[in-house]
Amino acid sequence: MKVAVIMGSDSDLEVVKKGIKVLKDFDVEFEARVLSAHRTPYQTIEYVKNLEDRGFDVIIGAAGKAAHLAGVIAGVTCLPVIGLPIKSSTMDGMDSLLSMVQMPSGVPVATVAINGAENAGLLAIQILSVKSAELRAKFKEFKKQMELEVEKKDKKIQESL
Amino acid sequence: MKVAVIMGSDSDLEVVKKGIKVLKDFDVEFEARVLSAHRTPYQTIEYVKNLEDRGFDVIIGAAGKAAHLAGVIAGVTCLPVIGLPIKSSTMDGMDSLLSMVQMPSGVPVATVAINGAENAGLLAIQILSVKSAELRAKFKEFKKQMELEVEKKDKKIQESL
Amino acid sequence: MKVAVIMGSDSDLEVVKKGIKVLKDFDVEFEARVLSAHRTPYQTIEYVKNLEDRGFDVIIGAAGKAAHLAGVIAGVTCLPVIGLPIKSSTMDGMDSLLSMVQMPSGVPVATVAINGAENAGLLAIQILSVKSAELRAKFKEFKKQMELEVEKKDKKIQESL
Amino acid sequence: MKVAVIMGSDSDLEVVKKGIKVLKDFDVEFEARVLSAHRTPYQTIEYVKNLEDRGFDVIIGAAGKAAHLAGVIAGVTCLPVIGLPIKSSTMDGMDSLLSMVQMPSGVPVATVAINGAENAGLLAIQILSVKSAELRAKFKEFKKQMELEVEKKDKKIQESL
Amino acid sequence: MKVAVIMGSDSDLEVVKKGIKVLKDFDVEFEARVLSAHRTPYQTIEYVKNLEDRGFDVIIGAAGKAAHLAGVIAGVTCLPVIGLPIKSSTMDGMDSLLSMVQMPSGVPVATVAINGAENAGLLAIQILSVKSAELRAKFKEFKKQMELEVEKKDKKIQESL
Amino acid sequence: MKVAVIMGSDSDLEVVKKGIKVLKDFDVEFEARVLSAHRTPYQTIEYVKNLEDRGFDVIIGAAGKAAHLAGVIAGVTCLPVIGLPIKSSTMDGMDSLLSMVQMPSGVPVATVAINGAENAGLLAIQILSVKSAELRAKFKEFKKQMELEVEKKDKKIQESL
Amino acid sequence: MKVAVIMGSDSDLEVVKKGIKVLKDFDVEFEARVLSAHRTPYQTIEYVKNLEDRGFDVIIGAAGKAAHLAGVIAGVTCLPVIGLPIKSSTMDGMDSLLSMVQMPSGVPVATVAINGAENAGLLAIQILSVKSAELRAKFKEFKKQMELEVEKKDKKIQESL
Amino acid sequence: MKVAVIMGSDSDLEVVKKGIKVLKDFDVEFEARVLSAHRTPYQTIEYVKNLEDRGFDVIIGAAGKAAHLAGVIAGVTCLPVIGLPIKSSTMDGMDSLLSMVQMPSGVPVATVAINGAENAGLLAIQILSVKSAELRAKFKEFKKQMELEVEKKDKKIQESL
Repeated sequence: MKVAVIMGSDSDLEVVKKGIKVLKDFDVEFEARVLSAHRTPYQTIEYVKNLEDRGFDVIIGAAGKAAHLAGVIAGVTCLPVIGLPIKSSTMDGMDSLLSMVQMPSGVPVATVAINGAENAGLLAIQILSVKSAELRAKFKEFKKQMELEVEKKDKKIQESL
Repeated sequence: MKVAVIMGSDSDLEVVKKGIKVLKDFDVEFEARVLSAHRTPYQTIEYVKNLEDRGFDVIIGAAGKAAHLAGVIAGVTCLPVIGLPIKSSTMDGMDSLLSMVQMPSGVPVATVAINGAENAGLLAIQILSVKSAELRAKFKEFKKQMELEVEKKDKKIQESL
Repeated sequence: MKVAVIMGSDSDLEVVKKGIKVLKDFDVEFEARVLSAHRTPYQTIEYVKNLEDRGFDVIIGAAGKAAHLAGVIAGVTCLPVIGLPIKSSTMDGMDSLLSMVQMPSGVPVATVAINGAENAGLLAIQILSVKSAELRAKFKEFKKQMELEVEKKDKKIQESL
Repeated sequence: MKVAVIMGSDSDLEVVKKGIKVLKDFDVEFEARVLSAHRTPYQTIEYVKNLEDRGFDVIIGAAGKAAHLAGVIAGVTCLPVIGLPIKSSTMDGMDSLLSMVQMPSGVPVATVAINGAENAGLLAIQILSVKSAELRAKFKEFKKQMELEVEKKDKKIQESL
Repeated sequence: MKVAVIMGSDSDLEVVKKGIKVLKDFDVEFEARVLSAHRTPYQTIEYVKNLEDRGFDVIIGAAGKAAHLAGVIAGVTCLPVIGLPIKSSTMDGMDSLLSMVQMPSGVPVATVAINGAENAGLLAIQILSVKSAELRAKFKEFKKQMELEVEKKDKKIQESL
Repeated sequence: MKVAVIMGSDSDLEVVKKGIKVLKDFDVEFEARVLSAHRTPYQTIEYVKNLEDRGFDVIIGAAGKAAHLAGVIAGVTCLPVIGLPIKSSTMDGMDSLLSMVQMPSGVPVATVAINGAENAGLLAIQILSVKSAELRAKFKEFKKQMELEVEKKDKKIQESL
Repeated sequence: MKVAVIMGSDSDLEVVKKGIKVLKDFDVEFEARVLSAHRTPYQTIEYVKNLEDRGFDVIIGAAGKAAHLAGVIAGVTCLPVIGLPIKSSTMDGMDSLLSMVQMPSGVPVATVAINGAENAGLLAIQILSVKSAELRAKFKEFKKQMELEVEKKDKKIQESL
Repeated sequence: MKVAVIMGSDSDLEVVKKGIKVLKDFDVEFEARVLSAHRTPYQTIEYVKNLEDRGFDVIIGAAGKAAHLAGVIAGVTCLPVIGLPIKSSTMDGMDSLLSMVQMPSGVPVATVAINGAENAGLLAIQILSVKSAELRAKFKEFKKQMELEVEKKDKKIQESL
């Protein structure tokens, strides 16, 4: 049970690592790579098309601007592909979002929020949970913890006002 | 192995049924419901929170405008939730897309293209394939067929010009 | 005569407190809570559905990004719900605004400007004034003061130029 | 207990009448006027500033394009003002929405969805319900009916698939 | 020959003063006022409707967010009204621009660029030049100077590269 | 006292003629030309730069898409230039609007609403009125008529409801 | 001297053929193919990477929605790539435009207007003209003809008014 | 073999020089000028129309806001024109992009990403390569280097995680 995390540029790492942290927190094995749909297309395809045989289950593709990476990945694999649009220096991430989510019929990319790296990681966990009762249980625990944190903040604010 | 397809309004059915057709084509069991995050919130939650115990693996939530349905579903389940933004009478689907995809950390919705019902269905298949080699094989066959169709169209256009 | 102020995250507080200040300035009783449509859905619904019986008249729901909170609140109460869209780190608040204002027929959310917390508070006062002549009088006084302040600034600028 | 419905142009009537129907259905007294912030500003102000004394409680302002009507109304009354942005021939209603909702601090407009006339009417009912237990009861009944209709549609779709 | 410069808030002054500087540079008499379409509507109208009789020829209206000021001014005067949309804290000025420029038939506002205060001033000069050969001559001189400055910058850059 | 109406393409005529009708209604002399900033740049400049000497006072430039016409005109004349953005087959007129209104400092274009041809004509009248008491009087009459028409429609709707 | 015209779907042909007509009018040899970046990625790359050796000089890539085709082509060739964004059923072509034009540093796509197929063809001619005096001469003739057509339309409209 | 780089304002230089650096790196002769479509239209046209005869092959036009420069250039030359939209102080470059890319049929501008100066330079190289095998070879080398850099970054990130 493994997740491949592919980012289009090393400048995406700062955002992407929040997603990697999720995978570590859930003890899910992963590989993280910098592979570009435009600058290293052959390496990208070569890497992606072997992932299924190498036992990977889910792929996260993170990219900004004309964010083709996740779509290109989805073209050469049958694994579910999670698209993480990265906000770049112009357009507030709208270009990245539309480039990722508006995929044509036949080749879906499961897109999360702009810069939503944590959710990309959690969605990978949810997908893996389809076959892992253990991960499902951990996710439930995570959800419970998140609930408790909101309750704590709620209490704190009520006291402060 | 079952998929729940929830739409926020019966007017979404015309789009959603392209996704249901995919599930049928892949022989995946499903339930389709009209449940509204705003008009029937209790029924929605009641239905969703039992899906895991009833053996469902994936949920598709389709809605338009202030499209809260998929997010509300994601709040009360640990199953992966696919968001299908429906284009409504104003804003060309942009409101639906942003309402779905921009989920806060902790509660992902796997969003597909505006009106991308077929892709919502296919993403469900890809997710189920994580535990079903049979479905994975069918998806590969589907991908091959899609490729052949493009090749046929390519040939046709080359001949026509 | 009471107002419930619900925010989706404690990070919304910095904006929301300008609205709370309005309620305090008008001596209107209020409760402020952190309750999330996605992370603590049950607590949110539980809290909201009892507000009417507990003597509340208006609810303010503040949230950012895929801002479902006000809509979810509106689904489980008959009280008027004011939506306060919070600007988040991407999309300049457009996602929050559209997620709030584009509600489907049957379940309105009275939406104010992005980050318009003061106006959310004032709208609550205006709604309460429908039954309180005293609050109406205070609001008139507020409006008069606002007018005088603009006149003062007008004078100051005229002198400075 | 009365509602004033003001539209900026007679061409808005086709949308606005869904809101008027709501007022009729709830047996709420109303006046409907065509008054323009730009073409008949004096008449608009004259009419609006007397509404409070004439026993009105809520005002609905409907307009398209550079939709200043609701804001202008809000400037000369203390009554709560509901803004109904009308979709016009260009910009898909975005201009109307932003012109209405982005009001400056001090002068709120309670904005509903683009062309959301029914919701403008229902929001008026919710506001009036703050002082009318009878209207509140009717609104509850309306909400219940809406729920039942969704359930009926749900059943119908389940049977059809 | 006089120009009235009206801004909706004293916070607009920092932008507006570039326009005022133009009027001073061209030795055109002007009055600058803070008058709000929403907070001081009566004062605004009172002031504007007397401008023609007081010998004013052009009005500049500067405002941000739901920028109704220029439209409200245009409703109560026959003088040409220049709209200057001010960029505010959200929406990058798009709300201000659309609120100003999308005026309904019959009541034009001559809109310049977001924060384009200098151009608002220059447009006023161009309009006054319709009856003043002297101003026209000054404008020609200004245009010539602008040309020379570009040529100087051009030379400088050519030398630097 | 003459107005030049320049459109970038003959396909703009259907919109532009509502503006021409205004000029005719006000008995203002005009010339209407098809001149393209991109396809006939020399003719455009040649025509525009002589307009002042030929006794023209105002220029209307109408264009769609990358609507450079009004800006190019403004570059070679000192006359006030009114920009009329035409809605084209994509982008709902947003491209035309931004291309016209966002002019750099020094070269203003007085932009009206997308497809707002009538207002382009009326703005020309308002500008000419700066030196013509007769036109000013006619504009006042027009404004009065517009007011009466709204009043008539108001009466009609009140009777119909 | 040859141009490759690649479209992502046969549904793009209706737009694309206006560009093909340009190539035919200029007697430029071309190949037109349907090749999808997502559905037939291997065929696309295989075809594109041989184009230079086969004597092609320019490539046109036409696609809609998440329009990755031109970018993917640009990744595997050194030839100049012209991007033609196709307007699809939602988003008015904005998704296609941003997906094409916002390419990362190192891999340019020469993007033309949404649905601007004729310009894609003409840009190919202009690029080929860099080495062909004959094509340059033909382009000059084309430009002259275009000028004459505008002049004809100009005359016709002047006579009609 | 020469490239003309024209920017609309000296403030564009900071972005543009990344494109100039590309030309220098590839040892391509160039001229860089500040010429404004609006402030120095005659100089712009005079300069551009002689470029072909002076042996230039490609023109880069860089401008912001209502970015008419590239379009105006394209109107008076047969050389291919590359448009570089510069992000300005409002609208995040969207105005510049649309003003450049949405050119009418007959007059293409080869538009690159907002602030994509490096790509403007590289596109010029690709176009020149159509006639220069030497430049083509250098571009291949550049592409190879870019690939190696991504591989280095990939290795580095793999080691760091």
